[in-house]
Amino acid sequence: MAKTPVLTPRADDFPRWYQDLIGKAELADNGPVRGTMVIRPYGYGLWERMQAEMDARIKETGTQNAYFPLLIPESYLTREADHVEGFAPELAVVTHGGGHRLEEPAVVRPTSETIVNDYFSKWIQSYRDLPLLINQWANVVRWELRPRLFLRTSEFLWQEGHTAHATYEEARDFAAHVHRRVYEDFLRTVLALDVVPGRKTAKERFAGAVNTLTLEGMMGDGKAVQMATSHELGQNFARAFRTRYLSREGRQELVWQTSWGSTTRMIGALVMAHGDDDGLRVPPRLAHIQVVVLAIKDDASVLARVREVGDRLRAAGLRVRVDDHTDVPFGRRAVDWELKGVPVRVEIGPRDLENGTAMLVRRIPGGKEPVALDQLASVLPGILDEDQALLLAQSRERRESRTAEVSTIGEAVEAASAGGWARIPWAVLGEEGESKLAEHAVTVRCLVAEDGSVPEADDAPGNVAVVARAY
Amino acid sequence: MAKTPVLTPRADDFPRWYQDLIGKAELADNGPVRGTMVIRPYGYGLWERMQAEMDARIKETGTQNAYFPLLIPESYLTREADHVEGFAPELAVVTHGGGHRLEEPAVVRPTSETIVNDYFSKWIQSYRDLPLLINQWANVVRWELRPRLFLRTSEFLWQEGHTAHATYEEARDFAAHVHRRVYEDFLRTVLALDVVPGRKTAKERFAGAVNTLTLEGMMGDGKAVQMATSHELGQNFARAFRTRYLSREGRQELVWQTSWGSTTRMIGALVMAHGDDDGLRVPPRLAHIQVVVLAIKDDASVLARVREVGDRLRAAGLRVRVDDHTDVPFGRRAVDWELKGVPVRVEIGPRDLENGTAMLVRRIPGGKEPVALDQLASVLPGILDEDQALLLAQSRERRESRTAEVSTIGEAVEAASAGGWARIPWAVLGEEGESKLAEHAVTVRCLVAEDGSVPEADDAPGNVAVVARAY
Repeated sequence: MAKTPVLTPRADDFPRWYQDLIGKAELADNGPVRGTMVIRPYGYGLWERMQAEMDARIKETGTQNAYFPLLIPESYLTREADHVEGFAPELAVVTHGGGHRLEEPAVVRPTSETIVNDYFSKWIQSYRDLPLLINQWANVVRWELRPRLFLRTSEFLWQEGHTAHATYEEARDFAAHVHRRVYEDFLRTVLALDVVPGRKTAKERFAGAVNTLTLEGMMGDGKAVQMATSHELGQNFARAFRTRYLSREGRQELVWQTSWGSTTRMIGALVMAHGDDDGLRVPPRLAHIQVVVLAIKDDASVLARVREVGDRLRAAGLRVRVDDHTDVPFGRRAVDWELKGVPVRVEIGPRDLENGTAMLVRRIPGGKEPVALDQLASVLPGILDEDQALLLAQSRERRESRTAEVSTIGEAVEAASAGGWARIPWAVLGEEGESKLAEHAVTVRCLVAEDGSVPEADDAPGNVAVVARAY
Repeated sequence: MAKTPVLTPRADDFPRWYQDLIGKAELADNGPVRGTMVIRPYGYGLWERMQAEMDARIKETGTQNAYFPLLIPESYLTREADHVEGFAPELAVVTHGGGHRLEEPAVVRPTSETIVNDYFSKWIQSYRDLPLLINQWANVVRWELRPRLFLRTSEFLWQEGHTAHATYEEARDFAAHVHRRVYEDFLRTVLALDVVPGRKTAKERFAGAVNTLTLEGMMGDGKAVQMATSHELGQNFARAFRTRYLSREGRQELVWQTSWGSTTRMIGALVMAHGDDDGLRVPPRLAHIQVVVLAIKDDASVLARVREVGDRLRAAGLRVRVDDHTDVPFGRRAVDWELKGVPVRVEIGPRDLENGTAMLVRRIPGGKEPVALDQLASVLPGILDEDQALLLAQSRERRESRTAEVSTIGEAVEAASAGGWARIPWAVLGEEGESKLAEHAVTVRCLVAEDGSVPEADDAPGNVAVVARAY
């Protein structure tokens, strides 16, 4: 007898499958104010691991964490023309505080370039104060009319880096460094996503930037998600906020800046990239629960053994949860952990104890086999490494097999509409072609150089546009 | 020649000394919107360490982190009568989002009991779902008319725990457990503060709680700071939000709840409790920089040795910063690290290298002595332990020597006005006496039992009121 699917199958309705999974795996709920979300403990556990892995990489670049205020005077946003144009339609505005109408309304930060520059202009005096490398972990609000949990929410959590440098070259190189060493490294080695690094077109650039670098990931339905971006801001904000330094030569010079961000939308992308019809599959290096040890039934020696195995695996350096909630039927708990995508289940019942074994169930490749209890701690690390590599290989295989090389705009639209990516020479597409794609809800995700590297200019010869539908 | 003081001396003007220190040690700046603050990297580093230590203790209680929305529909706040009365005067209100006036204004969360209960009422079905133990790290906004950096700010960072239990006793015991095992343990063993645990009077209770536990710390000027609170909410929010569960006996019952919080004001208290006229003194267990290794001058072999010593101390498990910024005069850097309160400085110059020693300067007890370079890694852990113990002893000594046992309201006012605490029998003071104290800006910080434990009721026989001026 075929089992009733717990989730809408992906092939039937991918967006519905996503929504089902987010709810049933207890990742998040919709909030009461339009477009906001509640991140539930299992979803937040994923975010905590993302934070820990990213934060270590951010600190390795020499960047320090700080915290800037949530509320920004409305007038700050208007100082950089492109910036205000980009963000004005998305702002949440505080008009009353402490029972009174405010003299100047405050916006809830949609991003912090303006308020950061207000302080950079005070803190930076001379070349000795540069580079200034700051990051913050914070919430931001961008009013969202078509919300989708994690992917598009009116409030989301993120990190935003803000740096100031003495020269254009240093700023450019730092943006690229963060992009490669923080974002790409994290996305590949921890999230197991075969992302494509590239450069945004002028149309897709961050409001106020002179260049935006991006990492694009392919989801299970062939659409794209922008995973993280790193911007060269040139001197746009420095000019608006007079962020200047005294050079070695004794001249007042504007600083050159970068900003870079990644958000809780990475959780949504994780689901869409690695999930299957049974639920989420969490890459072992990311997982806050790598192994769940389940008691099959309420039996004193089973419970004792389950706890003891949990302790032993923890001592071996694994992240372990013991599930001894035997008042809930075993089958339901097994399905729940499958939905949540915990890489390995270790199931122990009375018969297993007799044999001195446990049933080891692997979520990522699928399949189960008995393993001697005293072998668990030694075999699991290798299994988790294998599964991590498998997810990355599947991500690469999907991207390669579903990316078409095309030479006309029509072919590009066709490929994207069929659920895939297309690569088309930028010289063929151009900004006019980009507008035509937009009529079909297809966008240029990024420009890449012929050799796969990130181009130094939009119009560098040989540039290829990667186009797709996107979340 | 006496050196010019870097800070206003505490004895001259304590509030001014505090403000000087916060600025010169680069802990924080005022934000542009009234009462908000920018937490600078050195200040934020202290907060990150507080978060790490507290988060580990919170997780040990079985509590999981989650995230609830920043924006709460205005109507939620009004559902619990005491709660709205307490918070209404401090609310920041968002009236516009995405370019349009909102149908219902949203408040920026001042605390999250209401929105948490909206979800608890959905997530909790049966006794099997209890206890539900949730915590979040977040920002909150409470409009502040008399702001003071860290101590009273319109936006602050905090953790807020929210739990639901099947019985009154379980909720009461959990609030007490968090208070002792998370807050008191952290404040004593990491922050080195000799806090007094007690119970708030009805007047000082959290808006919506039936009991509030507090930990009060004495600052350098003898005033008090409320360091953390833990509330029994009874069934007040459960009733307002219909947060019910199906009991084992098959009846629908309201849950019993707790909430508990601690904030960035702990950074302000840290400064006021341990700072001296030369700056901050950071307890070694808290310090994100326990040891700074300074190159006295720009000399290749000095720089090489400084970095090598840094690596060796890091390998020994210490949190180390290398200061090789020899383009800034050594004296200025030494004063800066003193201001910032790094427990130990290891200073290395050419003459030290000849002797195979470094100058070890201790911030907490004061004093310096040369130490053989190859002894540093073995002597420093013991020194840091000593300094940690010394700060706690000084905190205890101050509290004991500046707390008066009094028997009249007049004596209590006098003791508090002179910069100290007074202990007065609650039977003598009572709610009427509490109102009289308020005329002199003196408050009951907490009630304690005769044996120093936390009383189970305001009117338990033998209760003593600890009264003081407070920040």
